[in-house]
Amino acid sequence: MTTLHGTFDTPAFMPVGTKGSIKGILPELVAGTGAQVVLNNTYHLLLRPGPELVWRRGGVHRFMNWNGPILTDSGGYQAFSLAETNKVDDDGVTFKSIVDGASIRMTPERAIEVQNLLGADIIMAFDDCPPAAPDSGQVVEAGTQPARREAAVKRDSGKKGYDHVKRLDIALDRTAKWLQRCKNAHSRPQEQSLFGITQGGSDLTRRARSIEQVCNVELPGYAIGGVAVGETTEEIASVVRFAAPRLPDGKPRYLMGVGYERDILAAVMAGVDMFDCVLPTRNGRNASAFTATGALKLRNLAHAEDERPIEPGCDCYACSPRSHGWQGSDLGHFSRSYIRHLFMAEEMLGPILVTLHNLRHFQRFMADIRATVATDDWDGLLSRWPVARPAGGLVVRGGGQ
Amino acid sequence: MTTLHGTFDTPAFMPVGTKGSIKGILPELVAGTGAQVVLNNTYHLLLRPGPELVWRRGGVHRFMNWNGPILTDSGGYQAFSLAETNKVDDDGVTFKSIVDGASIRMTPERAIEVQNLLGADIIMAFDDCPPAAPDSGQVVEAGTQPARREAAVKRDSGKKGYDHVKRLDIALDRTAKWLQRCKNAHSRPQEQSLFGITQGGSDLTRRARSIEQVCNVELPGYAIGGVAVGETTEEIASVVRFAAPRLPDGKPRYLMGVGYERDILAAVMAGVDMFDCVLPTRNGRNASAFTATGALKLRNLAHAEDERPIEPGCDCYACSPRSHGWQGSDLGHFSRSYIRHLFMAEEMLGPILVTLHNLRHFQRFMADIRATVATDDWDGLLSRWPVARPAGGLVVRGGGQ
Repeated sequence: MTTLHGTFDTPAFMPVGTKGSIKGILPELVAGTGAQVVLNNTYHLLLRPGPELVWRRGGVHRFMNWNGPILTDSGGYQAFSLAETNKVDDDGVTFKSIVDGASIRMTPERAIEVQNLLGADIIMAFDDCPPAAPDSGQVVEAGTQPARREAAVKRDSGKKGYDHVKRLDIALDRTAKWLQRCKNAHSRPQEQSLFGITQGGSDLTRRARSIEQVCNVELPGYAIGGVAVGETTEEIASVVRFAAPRLPDGKPRYLMGVGYERDILAAVMAGVDMFDCVLPTRNGRNASAFTATGALKLRNLAHAEDERPIEPGCDCYACSPRSHGWQGSDLGHFSRSYIRHLFMAEEMLGPILVTLHNLRHFQRFMADIRATVATDDWDGLLSRWPVARPAGGLVVRGGGQ
Repeated sequence: MTTLHGTFDTPAFMPVGTKGSIKGILPELVAGTGAQVVLNNTYHLLLRPGPELVWRRGGVHRFMNWNGPILTDSGGYQAFSLAETNKVDDDGVTFKSIVDGASIRMTPERAIEVQNLLGADIIMAFDDCPPAAPDSGQVVEAGTQPARREAAVKRDSGKKGYDHVKRLDIALDRTAKWLQRCKNAHSRPQEQSLFGITQGGSDLTRRARSIEQVCNVELPGYAIGGVAVGETTEEIASVVRFAAPRLPDGKPRYLMGVGYERDILAAVMAGVDMFDCVLPTRNGRNASAFTATGALKLRNLAHAEDERPIEPGCDCYACSPRSHGWQGSDLGHFSRSYIRHLFMAEEMLGPILVTLHNLRHFQRFMADIRATVATDDWDGLLSRWPVARPAGGLVVRGGGQ
């Protein structure tokens, strides 16, 4: 995909730079992991330092010193799920700032204005995000935000006369109306690509209706939203296999907030082009490393004397021998033993090293997927990435519809 | 100075890697600031992960992935000042671990054994560090550890029959006896240079006695200890101008735990070759940047919209434009505005960027001092580093005795 700030290869995985920074990682090192495009959260930058300040400072690329492509979300998801109290009406949502408690009003127009000020290459429509069904029994997985989401469910479903099914239908219709308002409000369409977001939860009938409504508005790309809020990998795959092929051909398809390697692979098979997730950064800060065969918990005593890198053969900053630039002598890899010590001693370098590894892990995985799109050797891919093997076997592109 | 792990230029400033890591900074980036030698704290590595583990993992160079010169202190200072309870006798000190409360015994023999296991290029003698005088009225400065020190003073001076002057004399004699035991215990003298530490507080008579006692033991280098525990810059300079010229010619002189630019400059003029201090890293984590004209507090509102780098003209990672390695486009500097945002948003990248700047600041300062040793243009140096100008004017080398 080509933007004013360069191109990125698809399918692409975008690291999340919530507040204008990939936590703990210098931009140059982010680029060094192979990341070509990053995501910033509009909600967080709206609250602090504010989009007007970022605009005056030359936009979010200059502000954070990342001059490759950037995508901003609309802030809708966080406005609905993070705020302790919010009030939704047909015009928008009012919520309390988690920074200073100030009351903040978001409408489709303001969400786009904020993103126009931030200046990302790809910006997202502002949609109505109702909580998941109170009785959905969704499985809680690391990396999603089910706890907050559940709080929102509890709050809303506890309201007198709350009708969840009715609420979902209202959300779909509102999302469609708000999308047109977003498009009308967009003041920089030549510089920023506005993507629409399809919703509908796990209900395929509603998914179909949302896709029809949203794709009825002509836009440069479309996203699948409302996934990765606590579903199993099978549920995610089922929705994505239904939704992705129904999005317009020849335009980028973005699956928001996903996810684990197996979820990404299933979605690529269904035709998805773009992904983002906090998993590599968040898990990295918590000493959990991604490997081709699954998670490695680096605080475990088993690693105390382990001289091996996190993942032998990995070419990331932490795992591979490096030239030190110091009197000509080379450095080895960082050992599991040392990384464990850093976490036990609460040293910042621990989270930094595992985050660097995890970011590279996802970029290596995506690069292998892109190569496999050309060769079509999906069994070969799965042999290199056992962690991505789905329980029910791989559904080859097009076969799942 | 030449070590088995390479050489470093003197006068040298050593960044402090307390627990085997310069907090938040990858070793390659530490080297990138110009640092040629780093310090690790034996006390912290003794408690966790333990010197035997570091030895089994190939020594501290391999463990932390720094293959330049390393110096370890003896752990004495922390054993006396950090432990809530300790018990000193003529043979050593017993203290409680701040990690798990375990009772730990340190003797000169064990301190050297621990440092032999860690394997640094320069190791320090284990000395008796009595608290500063209860009525010393010493000025509290950032970067020293006066608060803990004061707690130790209160503890010891409150003991029945405590006689501070007597305690100081005991410490001097003990330090001399322990030094010989350290030398006798040293099992790797061909690989590791053992430095003796002179003490004596601000009392020049005792300083002279300590220097005589300590330098009586033939060693490859000597240090001035017991400074930078709360004195004014004039008091530090007074002690250093007395002590440094009395240390043996032709051997490195190391002023432990110092300090600010003006303290370093005064000490270099008195003939000191080596310095270490936590100031660049500790202050960097707290948003305080060193500049040639003084401290810059990056949380201040004044920086909210300031596009300038921390210090215009500085060539550090944060202040200078960089090649991104990303699609051929260059990156600018990180602005004060962005760095302030990072601190306000509690993003790790803030401490990282200011630490990188501060480390480079001290290395640039030392490089300019080394150049000025050749040209003797000290007025020129002070014009470039106003922050280093002493209140009473510069005392030129040799003139202060």
